[in-house]
Amino acid sequence: MKAEIISTGNEVVTGAVNDTNSSWLASKLIELGILVKKIVCIGDDVKAISNAIQDSSKYADIVLVTGGLGPTNDDLTAEAAAFAAKDELVLRKSALAEIKAYFEKKGWDMPEINKKQAELPSRAEIIKNTAGTAPGFHMMFGKSLFVFMPGVPSEMKTMFKTGVEPLIRRHLGLKEKIVLRKLVVFGMPEAEVGMHLKGFKQQFPGIELGFRANFPLIEVKLFCMNTAGTHTNLDSYLNEAKNWVESKIGRYIISSEGLSMEEEVGRLLIAGSFTIAVAESCTGGLIADMLTSVPGSSDYFLFSGVTYSNDAKIAVLGVSEDTIMEKGAVHVETARQMAEGAKRISNATYGISTSGIAGPGGGSPAKPVGTVCIGVTGPDFSEAKSYYFPFKKRSMNKKIFAVTALELLRRKLIKAVKAQ
Amino acid sequence: MKAEIISTGNEVVTGAVNDTNSSWLASKLIELGILVKKIVCIGDDVKAISNAIQDSSKYADIVLVTGGLGPTNDDLTAEAAAFAAKDELVLRKSALAEIKAYFEKKGWDMPEINKKQAELPSRAEIIKNTAGTAPGFHMMFGKSLFVFMPGVPSEMKTMFKTGVEPLIRRHLGLKEKIVLRKLVVFGMPEAEVGMHLKGFKQQFPGIELGFRANFPLIEVKLFCMNTAGTHTNLDSYLNEAKNWVESKIGRYIISSEGLSMEEEVGRLLIAGSFTIAVAESCTGGLIADMLTSVPGSSDYFLFSGVTYSNDAKIAVLGVSEDTIMEKGAVHVETARQMAEGAKRISNATYGISTSGIAGPGGGSPAKPVGTVCIGVTGPDFSEAKSYYFPFKKRSMNKKIFAVTALELLRRKLIKAVKAQ
Repeated sequence: MKAEIISTGNEVVTGAVNDTNSSWLASKLIELGILVKKIVCIGDDVKAISNAIQDSSKYADIVLVTGGLGPTNDDLTAEAAAFAAKDELVLRKSALAEIKAYFEKKGWDMPEINKKQAELPSRAEIIKNTAGTAPGFHMMFGKSLFVFMPGVPSEMKTMFKTGVEPLIRRHLGLKEKIVLRKLVVFGMPEAEVGMHLKGFKQQFPGIELGFRANFPLIEVKLFCMNTAGTHTNLDSYLNEAKNWVESKIGRYIISSEGLSMEEEVGRLLIAGSFTIAVAESCTGGLIADMLTSVPGSSDYFLFSGVTYSNDAKIAVLGVSEDTIMEKGAVHVETARQMAEGAKRISNATYGISTSGIAGPGGGSPAKPVGTVCIGVTGPDFSEAKSYYFPFKKRSMNKKIFAVTALELLRRKLIKAVKAQ
Repeated sequence: MKAEIISTGNEVVTGAVNDTNSSWLASKLIELGILVKKIVCIGDDVKAISNAIQDSSKYADIVLVTGGLGPTNDDLTAEAAAFAAKDELVLRKSALAEIKAYFEKKGWDMPEINKKQAELPSRAEIIKNTAGTAPGFHMMFGKSLFVFMPGVPSEMKTMFKTGVEPLIRRHLGLKEKIVLRKLVVFGMPEAEVGMHLKGFKQQFPGIELGFRANFPLIEVKLFCMNTAGTHTNLDSYLNEAKNWVESKIGRYIISSEGLSMEEEVGRLLIAGSFTIAVAESCTGGLIADMLTSVPGSSDYFLFSGVTYSNDAKIAVLGVSEDTIMEKGAVHVETARQMAEGAKRISNATYGISTSGIAGPGGGSPAKPVGTVCIGVTGPDFSEAKSYYFPFKKRSMNKKIFAVTALELLRRKLIKAVKAQ
């Protein structure tokens, strides 16, 4: 089963946007057991798109094409598809009715220009677009199933889920949904994760291991390339494989359910009916941003004081002026008092804090860029630790400082939830 | 001048990572006046890479290839290049010396496995890698200049700037550095920006207009596709074009120097020797994160109180309990008091605040998801406004709430800096 993806649009080949559609589609196809062999990005050029369609029809069983279905002059994909397949464009009434209905629902008349979107190859079958005006379509060309989708990511994704995935399943006779496991790893470089999991392939034939770096986390995915169900109980076979992975790198797995650090911390806070307050210096609001990006976080997130200035640390968080004067802002003792202050003023169960040097400036031989002090305080403890990370980039440092602080909290939360 | 990009790696065709290298390279080539016609992504497969190299050699003048130069078994690009060009791999002493030197600088011995990275096509010319172990190389194949770079983005980017861009300039005889203008727009959809700038091409032949959406901002770039210098004074010609764009959409341009909203606000705060404090509810630390992502922000950013709970709004920011009880947390009066509180407790020149509903939950008919109240307070004023944005996604709402708050502040800062 060979698949190819063709992504069209000047914005892609000029570098104006990243082609995120293709990698999203590739990962969705993998979940169906289909490997993408090639991704081709080309500009809005009828000849070039048509050539790419013809090339792909020679090698691929399935070809997904995105972009170029809009109403303007540089939307040329339908024309290119017709040209490549020696077909012609005709005004498709059912497509036109759908476009009109889309506008009507918004209380508008369909602009004349959008009529063009209903002009599709005569033998194309139409795919409904529930999220925009551009209908998709599919057609066989040679031995390949070609699927054409709009380039707007939200429209494309909705269409893939509602129309294209079922179509591919029907086309390939796929019945069983592929079972996946996703583990999230922190604190071990990707290369080392790979080394620790050597031997997996021999141990679990039929299960593929995939890594995805999402700094500073690494996602480890287990999936089956073969949908035929060679194992009578795929679910327990995947669990066995997951347990094997956990036995190798369990210490570094922060979630076996594919949750991000902030989601896992949120889950534990809810499990224990706890609340959290944060005091941030060098992470500058990133911890609060991460925690509050989880829907429902208002149930446990109470407060974060982003105290960049020493005055704010003293006035808002109640850090001792003497401590700051004697030991400095970047110090475990200051971090401990910051965490305690955040917890105290918001009456939270737990408090965490960061104070460090994210760079690029502000470093010194004693406290180089990448140094961070992290405080964690809870019902019956109050601690702080100092770390050093060898990154030069401010954004990377902010991120790893924030995730490290949440990791220290996570370890405390696991114990507390277990003890309940 | 036709260019193509070949991006290799299983991680790209499986969707494990987005191929950000290609779009970065495409935008760099455009700055040199070179249009990329096609981007091809393929897995770690010697035959497939070699085929792609041969295909590109038929059409393109310049081909940039990334990935597959590492030390492991699935790094196959050098082999594929040799195979495509009917050349052979030989151990290149100068490349080996560079790899050894890289390890020595770190105080390590070169592992045996890295020797492979010095095995390159016999007629390849080596490009120095200052950021990692994999040397790059270039070779003519047919009429095409092929450049091979590592796939790690930081190594690739450094190599492009130090070795590849100068190489391409020499190869094409480019002398003059392309002059660019970058304007940043907020508050107008991309399609509308395009409409307002219709006629630009006729008005300014030789200058290209490029858009890049970076939600909720839009970058408008002016650049010359032609490096020959048809205008005696390119700089003033570009300024003329920039002024024309400003005359059409000036109200929506937040920076004519290509700065992001947080950079422009930072620039204005420094210009006026002002300081800023923030009180965030629905933006949950995002404003603080944005402001503090700018190096040097500790000069003006004093404090942000991320007060999710009403208790924290009252206890930390001093918002009146009556106001919250009578009018609710999402209300202009609450927002105004939050901004005043942040300013007061940190003794800042300005205070801004957000209180709203980012979703997906928490909306009501009277205050639907997408509603936000923003407070702005300064030396001689204190105001708050209410907005509604039609987005359903939490992350989009947080972002547009934050940028809108910074925009209100920016307008006040411009007046204040002018008045000084």
